[in-house]
Amino acid sequence: MKPYLEMTFAELAEEKSKVEKQYKEIQAMGLKLDMSRGKPSRAQLELSRPMLDVLHSNIYFNDETGTDCRNYGVLTGIPEAKRLMGEMSEVGPDDMIIFGNSSLNVMFDSVSRSFTHGVCGGTPWYKLDEIKWLCPVPGYDRHFKITEFFGIKMINVPMSENGPDMDMVEEYVNNDPTVKGIWCVPKYSNPQGYTYSEETVKRFAHLVPAAMDFRIYWDNAYSIHHLYEDPEKQDYLLEILRECRKAGRPDIVYKFISTSKVSFPGSGLAALAASHRNLEDIKKYMKIQTIGHDKLNQLRHVRFFGNVANMRDHMSKHADIMRPKFELVENTLERELGPLKIATWTKPNGGYFIGFDSLEGCAKSIVKKAKDAGVIMTSAGATYPYGKDPRDTNIRIAPSYPTEAELEKACEVFVVSVKLATLEKLLHR
Amino acid sequence: MKPYLEMTFAELAEEKSKVEKQYKEIQAMGLKLDMSRGKPSRAQLELSRPMLDVLHSNIYFNDETGTDCRNYGVLTGIPEAKRLMGEMSEVGPDDMIIFGNSSLNVMFDSVSRSFTHGVCGGTPWYKLDEIKWLCPVPGYDRHFKITEFFGIKMINVPMSENGPDMDMVEEYVNNDPTVKGIWCVPKYSNPQGYTYSEETVKRFAHLVPAAMDFRIYWDNAYSIHHLYEDPEKQDYLLEILRECRKAGRPDIVYKFISTSKVSFPGSGLAALAASHRNLEDIKKYMKIQTIGHDKLNQLRHVRFFGNVANMRDHMSKHADIMRPKFELVENTLERELGPLKIATWTKPNGGYFIGFDSLEGCAKSIVKKAKDAGVIMTSAGATYPYGKDPRDTNIRIAPSYPTEAELEKACEVFVVSVKLATLEKLLHR
Repeated sequence: MKPYLEMTFAELAEEKSKVEKQYKEIQAMGLKLDMSRGKPSRAQLELSRPMLDVLHSNIYFNDETGTDCRNYGVLTGIPEAKRLMGEMSEVGPDDMIIFGNSSLNVMFDSVSRSFTHGVCGGTPWYKLDEIKWLCPVPGYDRHFKITEFFGIKMINVPMSENGPDMDMVEEYVNNDPTVKGIWCVPKYSNPQGYTYSEETVKRFAHLVPAAMDFRIYWDNAYSIHHLYEDPEKQDYLLEILRECRKAGRPDIVYKFISTSKVSFPGSGLAALAASHRNLEDIKKYMKIQTIGHDKLNQLRHVRFFGNVANMRDHMSKHADIMRPKFELVENTLERELGPLKIATWTKPNGGYFIGFDSLEGCAKSIVKKAKDAGVIMTSAGATYPYGKDPRDTNIRIAPSYPTEAELEKACEVFVVSVKLATLEKLLHR
Repeated sequence: MKPYLEMTFAELAEEKSKVEKQYKEIQAMGLKLDMSRGKPSRAQLELSRPMLDVLHSNIYFNDETGTDCRNYGVLTGIPEAKRLMGEMSEVGPDDMIIFGNSSLNVMFDSVSRSFTHGVCGGTPWYKLDEIKWLCPVPGYDRHFKITEFFGIKMINVPMSENGPDMDMVEEYVNNDPTVKGIWCVPKYSNPQGYTYSEETVKRFAHLVPAAMDFRIYWDNAYSIHHLYEDPEKQDYLLEILRECRKAGRPDIVYKFISTSKVSFPGSGLAALAASHRNLEDIKKYMKIQTIGHDKLNQLRHVRFFGNVANMRDHMSKHADIMRPKFELVENTLERELGPLKIATWTKPNGGYFIGFDSLEGCAKSIVKKAKDAGVIMTSAGATYPYGKDPRDTNIRIAPSYPTEAELEKACEVFVVSVKLATLEKLLHR
């Protein structure tokens, strides 16, 4: 098969009528599949099923200091949960606060807190005329929704496989005091699966923000979410809090993690790691907001996992389920679209997504066609602030939720949709 | 024993030297007891121990619509949790949103949401010059801390055994558009244990607020927390949302409840009941803030309790533990302080607290003396906004946490502290 861009008009027209026929056949199958969200599959949930046995009525409910985890109190989390989540986040237990079930909620509350009460004694953001936020693109739609919700002006920063364009990040952060934050998914990034290079992390740690209340929102959502056992095929991310400490500015980063994709989505633990000054600032807010988070669920996680080594073993079982799905998608894209040269896509070593780029101006049309054939993808544009992908090329592929059999069908629908949308575009130039 | 106010100077001085001796003996006991917070005792936690058995690895995790409760999704709560918490709140499941583990957190977020985004399309409060809030006093310190944290001007409204002074509430709410809310604990109020009368509830429902975004914060924390089985000794509270609907203003109330003092404090369910317009407004915020709350804990509660009748049976076991403690406190106060006529206190039919009033200007001194003798009470003043009890009389007694044996000692310390502080006051007039 020839690349589309090398075809004559007649060849494209002929190809289009073939692909249209395929699309109609696929439509007739009446599929109802979902590749839109980074949602673990049923098989992955089953991996954590035994976790529901660790707390039962014939057990002690005290944490290691003797506190009864069933009662009120312990605002920032039980010590053993701080240790476990600290290991996961590669920091010490004293650098941690354990929250409820959602790290997104912690990020939202962090922005909201800054808006209403400022950061570490700084002016509350509601009193400022303009606040800007750097958004590496493509990125995570729910991050962008938070900053949009608070009326923060979002600025696109291009991603490469080493991370965000650090020249641009430094230019903004070090010079513009209205820039108050940046969204980062530093490992197996959402949606491309890129991991920030050592140089990138070091450049982050050496930022000299014009704003005292600038913070890096470091959402390390996929810290231990590798696809491969082979260490050569596992990405390595430099631990940023230590780098920031070395650089003398420990306060510039908030690190977020959760076990949502380790234990149970919606019933996991979320946590934040930061400098002690930041933690004290956050505690002032927390102690007004709540009496404490769910310590029984903290105990459940600690007793199930014990330590991060067991957590990593557990993640390798997740990988065994995820890996074939990623490979299925990648192989299908390579086989069906590779020769046509009408798209590029990433091949991550971990995380939940594959970043896909069509020819310019095709992404919306592809997603619509897939939807009309029964396959829900993440909305085109969602990976950009305000839902606006300026070139209309980026699509996030989330292979985790469907079974392999479903995924095979979904991929078939997707590649036919890509072909058809691209052909329509090319024939209307 | 003669009332102190009828004693001569010499009699008071003699009594003082006696009481001082008692106080020193008590101090020498080296007690370390806590009557400060409305915290269930260990025996109460044991009542819910079997709840940890209802979810285990050999069980289905689907809600009644077939949704797997282990995975992401279901923003506002599973249907059966809405039904159960709806029954508890005396409203329908469609009037409910289920949240995480803390109703205080829901109240905080409601104020925060109003501050940053306004109420049902109204102006965000941060844009307003002044916001006022009505605070029935004495009341719940953590409520007052929230409004204080957001810089809201709090206005004391006197409580009686029928509820807040409704003339004053109507005067403010119906005329002053800067009044945006009122804190209410309408049943077995914190700290007095009063329940709002039918007339009070009806007058609340018939408020005609000057501010479109005025809301009653109806914290029905003790809705089913009776001390007595006898229906004659159970307070009855009119359901306010229905009354507001009847009066044509369903939007003026947010009802908060939780199972923190039913199942496990810190690992219970919190919920909010409100008009559909309010719920839609809140959902707009929630869907940015989180992907959803802990549905496994919702399932755990639903499968353990089943319905509100079982929940009420469960509460009668709590009552069996709480009742003797309340009676012990009341009997000790009556025996030791009654004849002296130096204090008044409430005798609630439910809830977690007894409201105690000393002679004017004695409360701080009493709490300090109790503390110096090893018994922690809620800080004097805490039951008033800004921690300022204008007459320095009110003390909240929380009998739940200590064992009966501990409570007996704590009461002994307390009454001696009351006598001594009062005598010092009277002798220095």
